[in-house]
Amino acid sequence: MTPQELKDCHARIAPYIHRTPVLTSRLLNKISGAELYFKCENFQRMGAFKMRGATNAILQLSEEQKSNGVVTHSSGNFAQALSLAAKSLGIKAYIVMPSNAPKVKKDGVKEYDGEIIECEPTQHDREKTAKAIEEQKGATFLHPYNMKDVILGQGTAAIELLEDHPDLEYLFAPVGGGGLIAGTALAASFFGTNCQVIGGEPFEVDDAYRSIKSGKLEVNKTTNTIADGLKMSIGDQTFPIIKEHVKEIIRVTEDEIIASMKLIWERMKIIVEPSCSVPLAALLKEKNSFKGHKIGIILSGGNVDLNNLPFRTI
Amino acid sequence: MTPQELKDCHARIAPYIHRTPVLTSRLLNKISGAELYFKCENFQRMGAFKMRGATNAILQLSEEQKSNGVVTHSSGNFAQALSLAAKSLGIKAYIVMPSNAPKVKKDGVKEYDGEIIECEPTQHDREKTAKAIEEQKGATFLHPYNMKDVILGQGTAAIELLEDHPDLEYLFAPVGGGGLIAGTALAASFFGTNCQVIGGEPFEVDDAYRSIKSGKLEVNKTTNTIADGLKMSIGDQTFPIIKEHVKEIIRVTEDEIIASMKLIWERMKIIVEPSCSVPLAALLKEKNSFKGHKIGIILSGGNVDLNNLPFRTI
Repeated sequence: MTPQELKDCHARIAPYIHRTPVLTSRLLNKISGAELYFKCENFQRMGAFKMRGATNAILQLSEEQKSNGVVTHSSGNFAQALSLAAKSLGIKAYIVMPSNAPKVKKDGVKEYDGEIIECEPTQHDREKTAKAIEEQKGATFLHPYNMKDVILGQGTAAIELLEDHPDLEYLFAPVGGGGLIAGTALAASFFGTNCQVIGGEPFEVDDAYRSIKSGKLEVNKTTNTIADGLKMSIGDQTFPIIKEHVKEIIRVTEDEIIASMKLIWERMKIIVEPSCSVPLAALLKEKNSFKGHKIGIILSGGNVDLNNLPFRTI
Repeated sequence: MTPQELKDCHARIAPYIHRTPVLTSRLLNKISGAELYFKCENFQRMGAFKMRGATNAILQLSEEQKSNGVVTHSSGNFAQALSLAAKSLGIKAYIVMPSNAPKVKKDGVKEYDGEIIECEPTQHDREKTAKAIEEQKGATFLHPYNMKDVILGQGTAAIELLEDHPDLEYLFAPVGGGGLIAGTALAASFFGTNCQVIGGEPFEVDDAYRSIKSGKLEVNKTTNTIADGLKMSIGDQTFPIIKEHVKEIIRVTEDEIIASMKLIWERMKIIVEPSCSVPLAALLKEKNSFKGHKIGIILSGGNVDLNNLPFRTI
């Protein structure tokens, strides 16, 4: 992937996404000892950066492909993002979701006119069901993170952040399937001025951390984290970029994630989801290493179930 | 109070406050049928517009008065605002708080180096205790809302909103003691272009609504509302301004307040407190009267106790 491809991608999707604001907080600067710039993708359309990659992936299809619609399997933000991106572009989206997906997630997809196809809650059945839709409807399968056009789209948040603040020395992003951190790392290496990228990852799903250590693609053995957007394992498209361009992955505990989320809610007065709070948790954990530096943090999304918040527990 | 006084006040406090952003939301425009501009005082320093009035009131003191400090009785945002404003200006703040005030409120004052003096939880003892501090310390008493310099300060949020969007046809603000709505009404009448001001008030504490009806100052008989910033009754300084310049007060139920708060959290991804959600609740209740209009809404504050949220109840 080239700087020109990433620039073209940004120009392509710009009419369909928000250029999200960058917020600062004196109090969080004080707590961290660094100068922090928060790129607020929680204010992105449908509430997460996933809108960027989904929009780019659809725009790269041929007219014939568009006319047959798109399909994905996801129970998270990508399901909503693909539904809204498809709707904005006037095409059909089929979303394969496990039968046990929370009602709030299904409602999100329906609100954006995505067509839900239920499957058994296993990886095998998800893939089989999506395959069937590809064959029956001629729809194009779009992967939530493990494909070039999605990775490029996710990298555009970092492009905007670096346009606004070209002298950032570090960019922090969460690591789930790796689409966001890979796109961010490409943007930093193409457009940053000696800007290093650091990933935040829950201990409970630390496949990226372990993959970098071992040099080969590791998978998560549990998914026991509150950061529900980070449960996926990184893929064969995202891992090589992460291995080459991400300086370090810092792992955090569940309590550190919740404490970081609470800090952002209380101090910045904005809603972020647990996955979104992982990079700040990572920074605060290792704050002695980053004191005095200018740091960008990608706040990835703000879709939470307000009836099921974790604050009572800490 | 004159346009020049209000302009001077804004210039005086500008170095000590944030110029808060104005946010929009396609979804809330769609739901309301109007074009909404949200002035985000929840992003103000210490999380509420009260910072404006507190700063102005202190800056208007003589050097001798400043050297003896300031005192107020408040268990809400004004206690924190006065503490932080005093701290920023290098003077001492004494805060009289009822002994049963929530720990989260006391911690807020302590964080900004306000000195808490506890009193019995009655209006009589609050006033008596504040009076004693005035006499012992020579501190100047500043009222949370019922004084000119505080009203002028609160009006500066509307000045900024009208500078950004001069053609707003309505401004909505919550009504508690009346400092914010009175300042907003002055700003709209001085600097708006035929801009009408509408108040939102909980049914449970509808003294302003009843005072306008009867033409004389009514008081609240209960304070049974989740909108804890709106429990005070309007005062003899705020009422005449409200009577002259506020077009209408719309009353809302507790469930309408919580539903509006949930809507703002979920759709705008920002934290607002219950009191802050009252104007949108009022607008949505009477939305047929406001369809197609350009409307400014003052989001007054974002200080909530995350361990005690109301969403499970609806």
